[in-house]
Amino acid sequence: MAKVAVLGYGVVGSGVVDLFYKNKHQIEKKAGEEVEIKYILDIRDFPDSPYKDKLVKDFNIIVNDDDIKVVAECMGGLEPAYSFVKACLEKGKSVSTSNKELVAEKGAELLAIAKKMDCNFFFEASVGGAIPIIRPLHRCLGANEIKEISGILNGTTNFILTKMINEQMSFEDALNLAQSLGYAEKDPTDDVDGNDACRKICILASLAFGKHVYPKSVYTKGIRDIALKDVEFAKAWGGSIKLIGSVKKLDSGKIHISVEPKLVPYSNLISRVDDVFNAVMVVGDAVDKTMFYGRGAGKFPTASAVVADLIESIKHDRMVFSQYWGESTDSNYVEEYCKAQSRMYFRVDKMNSDLFGDVEYISADDNDEIAFVTHIMCIKDAVKLKIKLEENGIKVKSMISVLDID
Amino acid sequence: MAKVAVLGYGVVGSGVVDLFYKNKHQIEKKAGEEVEIKYILDIRDFPDSPYKDKLVKDFNIIVNDDDIKVVAECMGGLEPAYSFVKACLEKGKSVSTSNKELVAEKGAELLAIAKKMDCNFFFEASVGGAIPIIRPLHRCLGANEIKEISGILNGTTNFILTKMINEQMSFEDALNLAQSLGYAEKDPTDDVDGNDACRKICILASLAFGKHVYPKSVYTKGIRDIALKDVEFAKAWGGSIKLIGSVKKLDSGKIHISVEPKLVPYSNLISRVDDVFNAVMVVGDAVDKTMFYGRGAGKFPTASAVVADLIESIKHDRMVFSQYWGESTDSNYVEEYCKAQSRMYFRVDKMNSDLFGDVEYISADDNDEIAFVTHIMCIKDAVKLKIKLEENGIKVKSMISVLDID
Repeated sequence: MAKVAVLGYGVVGSGVVDLFYKNKHQIEKKAGEEVEIKYILDIRDFPDSPYKDKLVKDFNIIVNDDDIKVVAECMGGLEPAYSFVKACLEKGKSVSTSNKELVAEKGAELLAIAKKMDCNFFFEASVGGAIPIIRPLHRCLGANEIKEISGILNGTTNFILTKMINEQMSFEDALNLAQSLGYAEKDPTDDVDGNDACRKICILASLAFGKHVYPKSVYTKGIRDIALKDVEFAKAWGGSIKLIGSVKKLDSGKIHISVEPKLVPYSNLISRVDDVFNAVMVVGDAVDKTMFYGRGAGKFPTASAVVADLIESIKHDRMVFSQYWGESTDSNYVEEYCKAQSRMYFRVDKMNSDLFGDVEYISADDNDEIAFVTHIMCIKDAVKLKIKLEENGIKVKSMISVLDID
Repeated sequence: MAKVAVLGYGVVGSGVVDLFYKNKHQIEKKAGEEVEIKYILDIRDFPDSPYKDKLVKDFNIIVNDDDIKVVAECMGGLEPAYSFVKACLEKGKSVSTSNKELVAEKGAELLAIAKKMDCNFFFEASVGGAIPIIRPLHRCLGANEIKEISGILNGTTNFILTKMINEQMSFEDALNLAQSLGYAEKDPTDDVDGNDACRKICILASLAFGKHVYPKSVYTKGIRDIALKDVEFAKAWGGSIKLIGSVKKLDSGKIHISVEPKLVPYSNLISRVDDVFNAVMVVGDAVDKTMFYGRGAGKFPTASAVVADLIESIKHDRMVFSQYWGESTDSNYVEEYCKAQSRMYFRVDKMNSDLFGDVEYISADDNDEIAFVTHIMCIKDAVKLKIKLEENGIKVKSMISVLDID
C-alpha cells in the first residue's frame, strides 16, 4: 500500500483530498496498488473535517515517516513550500506540486535533487490547472523539436478581457466583477500585471528547451492599459486581444520569451478561448500546431492534475529521468525583447499616412481615432516609429504586437 | 542500445523513419539510451531510399530476432497487420501502432496478449493523429471519472464541411477538392460515411470506460446529406455543422455512442475547429471540460505520435498495466441510439407552428424553407415528430442533433 501526505489544506489541498476519496477505486486501479492519505499538513484547525484524524501541524512528522513515499504540495508561495519540498526530495520522497512560483523560481534546483535521489518532482498542476500540458509536452511530443509555445495562461485576465470584448465592460468594471466572483484577489497585481502568466511560460520554456528561465529575465506587461477602443478595433480587424505568454526558439539557440497583451487573429483558435479558460498552443517540427484547452484554475481542476501526478509517482517509484532541466550557463540565453519581430497594431489620434508607411488600416465607426496594423517589424523599429509619430504631434494611444503562429 | 523495427514503409512508416533520424539525439535523450532502427518491413523495393540496407520483405526476420524489443506498425488495414502485431506481442515485443482499424477491431485481444507477455501495446497515433489524446486521457486525467468525450475525429470531412461553411461550396465540389488535394481517397466512403470517425470514438470509449466497443455497435451517419442550406441556417442560429463522434456514460452504466453530423453552437470551441484539424473534448468530474486540438492525419504528425510511443516502450520495458480494457460481457452495454436525448434542428418546407410545438425559430433570408431547434427530446420522439410532420404534408429536409456539452 502506498501512503501519501498532502501539504496544505486550502482550496487545492482540500480538493486533492476530496477528489482522492471520491475516485479512490479508480485511482488505485491506475496506480496499481492500494493508496491511502496518511497525513494532511496545515497549521489551522479543521474540527469539522471528515479527515481531521489525518491533520498534523508539524512537518517533521511527515518528512521523518519512511512510510510516506509520495507528497502533494498544495500550499502555494515560496516559503515554507520550498523548504518542505526540498526536505522531502532529499529524503527520496516524490513530490507533486501545484505551486507555479516554486517551480518557476526553484525548478532546476529541485529537479536536480530529485534526480540525485532517484525520485520524482512533478508539477502538471502548476501550468494550466486542469489542462494536461506538462506531460503531453514532454512525453507525447517527445519526438518533436519544439519551435514555439504560446497561450493564455491566466484565467483571471482572460475573464476580464472576455467581459471587455463581449459586454463592452471597462477594465475597471470587469476587474471589480472578477473580484466579486472570487476569480481575482483583492490585490490583483500578480494576475493583471502578468506575473502569474510569466511564471507559467517560464516553466513551459524550461521544460521545452531544457534550461531554466527565471521570471525576472522575461519581458512582462499586463492588461491594465488595454482600452475598450482597442478591443473594438481588434474586432473590426478580425481578432481578439488576449494576454499571451509566448516563447520561441531562435536559430541562434537563444529564445524570445514574453508576456504581453497581443492581438490574436480569429484564424487562431486562441482568439476564441473565453472566460476563465486557458489554452496553450505548442508548435513542433513534426506535429505542426497542437493546442490544449481547459480550466486554468479552480479547486477540482487543479486537484485533478495533482492527483494524476501522485498516481504517476506511485506507479513509477524511480525518477522519470528525462523530465529534467538544468541551470542555464549562458546569461544571454534570453534574447532582448526589443529584437523580437511582429506585426504591430497602433491606435493613434490623427491620420498621417506618410508617416505610417504601408499599413493595413482598420475601419471602424470612430472618427476620432485611427488604428492600423503594420508589416512584420522589429519591436525596436516599432518603438522608433512611435517616437517619430509623437515628434510629429500624433499621439500613440496603443501599440500591441500581433500573435502570428506560422 | 534499443533496436526497433518499422512495419510498413508507406506514408506513416517513412515518416517514422525520417522523423527518427531527424531528431535522433533528442529521442535517445528521452528514451534514456541509444536507439537504432534495425529493420523496415515492406514488400516493395525502395532502391533510392537512404535506408535500403534496413529494408526486409520477410516478417519472420523481425519476429524471430530477439534484438528487437519494440516494433512500430504503420501498415494500416486489418491484415496482415493483425497477424504481425499479434505475433510480435506473443514474443514479448512492445508494439506502437497508428492503425485505428486494428485497435478498434482487435484492441481488447491485443491488450490482453500484451498484458500476459508483460509488454506494451500503444496506439496514440490511432486517434487524432498528432494530437496527444490517448495518454492524456488515460494518465493526466487518471484521477477523473470521465463523463463524456465528443469531437471532430476525421480531418477529411472537416475539410469538406469547412469549405461548405466558409466558401459556400457544395458537398460534391468540396469532396472533389479534397480528393484533388490528397485529403480524401478515390473511394471516400470510410471518411464521408463516418466509418473512420467511428473507429476512433470506439477506441476512446474503450479506453475511457474500460470495455471494448466494436464499430458495428455504433450508430454511424456521415455527411453526405448535409446541404448548404443547413450550413447557412446553422450560421444564422450561431453555430457550425460538424461530424461529431461522441460517447457519454449514463447513470445506468451503459453508454450512448454515435457518429453523426451535429449542430455545434459557437459557444463550444469545437465549432471553430476548421480544415483538416481534429479536436477532442473530454469532460471529467474534476477537470470539467478540456480539449485537445491538432492535425488529425499526415505523415509527420502521425509519425510524431508513433515515435512518442516508441520512446515510452523503450523507457518502460514492462507493461503499463493500467492502459487496458477488456471485452464487454454485457451485450446491452451500448444503449439504443433512439434513446439518446438532444435538442434537434429541423429544416422543413412549410410553416406550421401548431405541429412544431414550442421551438426556437431560425431567421434567415429564405422564404421557401423554415428551420427551428427544439427543446431537448428523445431521438425516438424526434423521429415521431418527423413522421407526424410528413403525414401533414410538411417535408422534413433535415433533422440534426445539437451538440450540448454541459
